[in-house]
Amino acid sequence: MRPEAFVFDAYGTLYDVHSVAARCESCWPGKGAQLSQLWRAKQLEYTWQRSLMQRYVPFSTVTREALAYSCETLKLELSVAQMEGLMGEYTNLALYPEVTRTLQALKTRKAILSNGSPDILLPLVQNSGLKLDAVISVDELKIFKPAPQVYELAVKKLQTKDIGFVSSNCWDALGAKSYGFDVYWINRGNAPIDRLGFKPDRILKGLDEILL
Amino acid sequence: MRPEAFVFDAYGTLYDVHSVAARCESCWPGKGAQLSQLWRAKQLEYTWQRSLMQRYVPFSTVTREALAYSCETLKLELSVAQMEGLMGEYTNLALYPEVTRTLQALKTRKAILSNGSPDILLPLVQNSGLKLDAVISVDELKIFKPAPQVYELAVKKLQTKDIGFVSSNCWDALGAKSYGFDVYWINRGNAPIDRLGFKPDRILKGLDEILL
Repeated sequence: MRPEAFVFDAYGTLYDVHSVAARCESCWPGKGAQLSQLWRAKQLEYTWQRSLMQRYVPFSTVTREALAYSCETLKLELSVAQMEGLMGEYTNLALYPEVTRTLQALKTRKAILSNGSPDILLPLVQNSGLKLDAVISVDELKIFKPAPQVYELAVKKLQTKDIGFVSSNCWDALGAKSYGFDVYWINRGNAPIDRLGFKPDRILKGLDEILL
Repeated sequence: MRPEAFVFDAYGTLYDVHSVAARCESCWPGKGAQLSQLWRAKQLEYTWQRSLMQRYVPFSTVTREALAYSCETLKLELSVAQMEGLMGEYTNLALYPEVTRTLQALKTRKAILSNGSPDILLPLVQNSGLKLDAVISVDELKIFKPAPQVYELAVKKLQTKDIGFVSSNCWDALGAKSYGFDVYWINRGNAPIDRLGFKPDRILKGLDEILL
């Protein structure tokens, strides 16, 4: 039985963040992979730490702060133009190849639920041409995933609890499971399951498998 | 002016976790550094994620779960004996060399405020012979650092707001600063400051510098 609505995480689930890593590499040859990994790790850490500190700032700000920290750690000089160029990638990410046809084939309602703040999330969705019933940002709650009120926001916005939640970030999938959603973890990289006291309902290799 | 009480983080601040890395290396030669780094990173991630999910478990459980995840990621087989041996290190960590004399020289009240659950924190303090006025665990709150109620717990236990907070974990120092403490960041490794909207009041190379 299909749920009444599917709710998707954005970064890494629908949108491939590879182009950010490629631009890191073109700015600092030989350091791109290391920088983009540290940047992503710090970006997430800061969302969790700021949420717990009750010191929310928008995801675009967290992302800039994480980049500045990561460049300082790796002793890479970061110009304003490089910062803006890298941030610009966030509004022009490519969709994973199977996303558009999978979402077209899905006859339920479809929404994005993202940490992304509207200033970077809305242009991204528009630029990608994806058709959705709702694009929901945590920004109005001033707290990031995996707080339960974030998943509850999707219920309020879509006016249904019958939601299938889809994420490639295991901790996000398990946060949604802890809240009570039916959860699909997209495990493209064959990673272990995070130990957070919950299991995903289904583990998929790609988004198109939700149609099976 | 000295504060009325000093409150110290435990792991990495008073206690050197190097012996954990050494035991990882002796279990899996050539993999010790990589495993202990991933283990520590996951241990912290799980504290933040579980706090946000409102699914607290004691730090000893988080630490075991993070080890299991890390071994699976690195494809290292983990026996029960190895798990117990590694967890046993947590109750026998060495103090940094300057800790005992620094704390003896400090004539204020002194306490530990730690994520560590009593089952591993209390034996550690006892085994190290450290004399303190209080050993405070987040366990009674069922939430981890850097939530403000954790720092507030120290105020309640010590019955003073005039507290100097000391941590080698920058995000912990900044969480304490956000709460309102006077903060000393022990930056033994010359790391950059985390970008979390706050700065430590003082940055020290070692614990003894709080006496200066």
